[in-house]
Amino acid sequence: MTESLITTVDAGVTTPLGFLAGAVSAGLRKRASRDDLALLFSESPCVAAGLFTSSAIQAAPVVLSRRNLADGKAQAVVVNAGCANAYTGAEGYRDSEEMARLAASRLRLAESDILVASTGVTGHRLDMEKIRTALPSISLSRDGGDRFARAIMTTDTVPKQATATFAADGREYHVGGCAKGSGMIHPNLATMLAFLTTDAPVERVYLEKSLRRAADASFHMITVDGDTSPNDTLLILANGAAGGPSLRDGVDGSTQFREAVAQVCVELAKGMARDAEGATKLIEVKVVGAKSAGDARAAARTVAGSPLVKSAVYGNDPNWGRVLAAVARSGAAVEEEATSLFWQGVCVFQRGRALAYDEKALSAATKGDEVRIRVDLGLGSGRAVAWGCDLTDEYVRINSEYTT
Amino acid sequence: MTESLITTVDAGVTTPLGFLAGAVSAGLRKRASRDDLALLFSESPCVAAGLFTSSAIQAAPVVLSRRNLADGKAQAVVVNAGCANAYTGAEGYRDSEEMARLAASRLRLAESDILVASTGVTGHRLDMEKIRTALPSISLSRDGGDRFARAIMTTDTVPKQATATFAADGREYHVGGCAKGSGMIHPNLATMLAFLTTDAPVERVYLEKSLRRAADASFHMITVDGDTSPNDTLLILANGAAGGPSLRDGVDGSTQFREAVAQVCVELAKGMARDAEGATKLIEVKVVGAKSAGDARAAARTVAGSPLVKSAVYGNDPNWGRVLAAVARSGAAVEEEATSLFWQGVCVFQRGRALAYDEKALSAATKGDEVRIRVDLGLGSGRAVAWGCDLTDEYVRINSEYTT
Repeated sequence: MTESLITTVDAGVTTPLGFLAGAVSAGLRKRASRDDLALLFSESPCVAAGLFTSSAIQAAPVVLSRRNLADGKAQAVVVNAGCANAYTGAEGYRDSEEMARLAASRLRLAESDILVASTGVTGHRLDMEKIRTALPSISLSRDGGDRFARAIMTTDTVPKQATATFAADGREYHVGGCAKGSGMIHPNLATMLAFLTTDAPVERVYLEKSLRRAADASFHMITVDGDTSPNDTLLILANGAAGGPSLRDGVDGSTQFREAVAQVCVELAKGMARDAEGATKLIEVKVVGAKSAGDARAAARTVAGSPLVKSAVYGNDPNWGRVLAAVARSGAAVEEEATSLFWQGVCVFQRGRALAYDEKALSAATKGDEVRIRVDLGLGSGRAVAWGCDLTDEYVRINSEYTT
Repeated sequence: MTESLITTVDAGVTTPLGFLAGAVSAGLRKRASRDDLALLFSESPCVAAGLFTSSAIQAAPVVLSRRNLADGKAQAVVVNAGCANAYTGAEGYRDSEEMARLAASRLRLAESDILVASTGVTGHRLDMEKIRTALPSISLSRDGGDRFARAIMTTDTVPKQATATFAADGREYHVGGCAKGSGMIHPNLATMLAFLTTDAPVERVYLEKSLRRAADASFHMITVDGDTSPNDTLLILANGAAGGPSLRDGVDGSTQFREAVAQVCVELAKGMARDAEGATKLIEVKVVGAKSAGDARAAARTVAGSPLVKSAVYGNDPNWGRVLAAVARSGAAVEEEATSLFWQGVCVFQRGRALAYDEKALSAATKGDEVRIRVDLGLGSGRAVAWGCDLTDEYVRINSEYTT
């Protein structure tokens, strides 16, 4: 039984004890007045873990953060928006190293305790002169999480933050997080940055396992347009500031911790899908009755990522044939006669037969900002949930005007 | 050395000797006045081959055509638009059987010599009463290919037809074809119907091999939106009406035949990509220098299918970072330092380094209706070409308003 409680608050990453954050406008964006350089700092050393892009080409900050995470320790994260520092070769890597060095100097830490992330346009070098000037002026505070969350946004329209609280052994623990990402979101962490913090003490192996499990049920189950960026980064820092014994398998509170991390990740992932470029609706695709969990995951993600399903949802059109087509090409075991399909709770296809339904009423029922699609494959007990968003003309506008 | 010659003509499938076609309006479409029921007929029996959807759920006409193709023979094809007869179970299968029976009766053929194809809305039964009334009234003619090609269109804006002619052993041979498909086009024959005819005599195994090779270099290399339909069908009928010895490996003319089939398929595939729903530009993606041919195919298709690349092309935005991102997630072996990239002939990224270029001039150079992207992976000799189209707000409009 979990006592976790989700609250979406203004100060995600600084809700856990001992974390400070801040941001400044360094002038890296086209709209130079917005914050674009941010710091997250823990007052004490942290156990840390990360997951990164699956792309064959990894941006400089990813390569550097992987290196600095090799010892499972970190104490701060420096992030910039406006420029991804990707496809920039050896010079780009030296720029990321300098960013870490500047942050280490500002925070009086070792360079190897700094993690770096970048997001924005690819193929351009960072303007290091601007970063050299701006970074030392960032002021950190215990309520700086909101400013941090806003500084890392690109085409996001709202900051994404979430917190979960749980109690164990008489102590209260927090998991906080924020994320950015609104285009190119897809299974395997596509152009997404997410940062989690916790004041629980956690052993490294358990922290890594909890993060991986949470990502599998959240960030890996959202899809916007199937693209993957060289910059995707998910980090968690655990400083143990709330005290108590280190969490690991079997220790009191460890299950609550794992669930709290998963809940924060699901909240952030849903927030990203909902705020995807041009999106007007969140689509939740639940697949049950699959032959295996892997089949369920594949089917749910394929439906959530189908441009035809996404366009139909945008048009309030319960075009369930497109859902079946997506399921049938997902690679999952599918038998037409065993398959049932629900659109916003209404059964439209039952064990291989189309059912009559009131098209106008069903279309009207999907006019809100969430559409639920449920597929029962009728073959086993595998289940999974994926999230996506509708495909709108606004998506096309945003992505055809991004650099020019 | 090939003597094949491609000409896109008005009478694709009836250009080869001995083929007749015709169509009628049966009233199956919403706009009831347009032709929607079509027949293709050979005056003599044909060797026949086909490729079908890879979807786990296959529409009734696909199941029936597979069955009737089992003996490698056929003499006619009956096709309807307006209703795909998919997800219709055993009753739908009986409807497809009746369609074949009606055609067989009209043409005085055995039922097993009729192939059937359907396209249109899924999840609805065919209106057999209308088909029973209309089918017998179709009149066939030697110049009916154009009417046939138009009758099978759905959201296509133009009919797609092509013909290739070659000479061997003192005889002139023709390969003709037509296709429909403008949404859901993707590797593995997604919602696409294509029909090829030839007056060359061809052995069954060689016909099947030629069709598969042609599809691999054409229909399997186009991508519009990644969806796959339960109805995809590619058929070829060879009636041998031009005389001469049966073509097979090693026989004079067999290579020319194979190339003629490939050229017709490439023309039809490019026509489909160009006419894709809402598209304003054809995108040609050429990948060279890949470690293997498979790598080249994967990389080319991933770039051609990336919504971000497609949106950038629509906006005349040479956003090459998106091409690199697509290549890097394609599964192909990629090394940043070995990779070069050309956008409309201009090198923008050379062996891992971004090159300076005139953004305005390059954007202006892509304002026509074809954009060429070339990626040199610098790792081997694998090469492939894929075709796609830009992603436009018109695509979204068409697909959000399809059934409601």
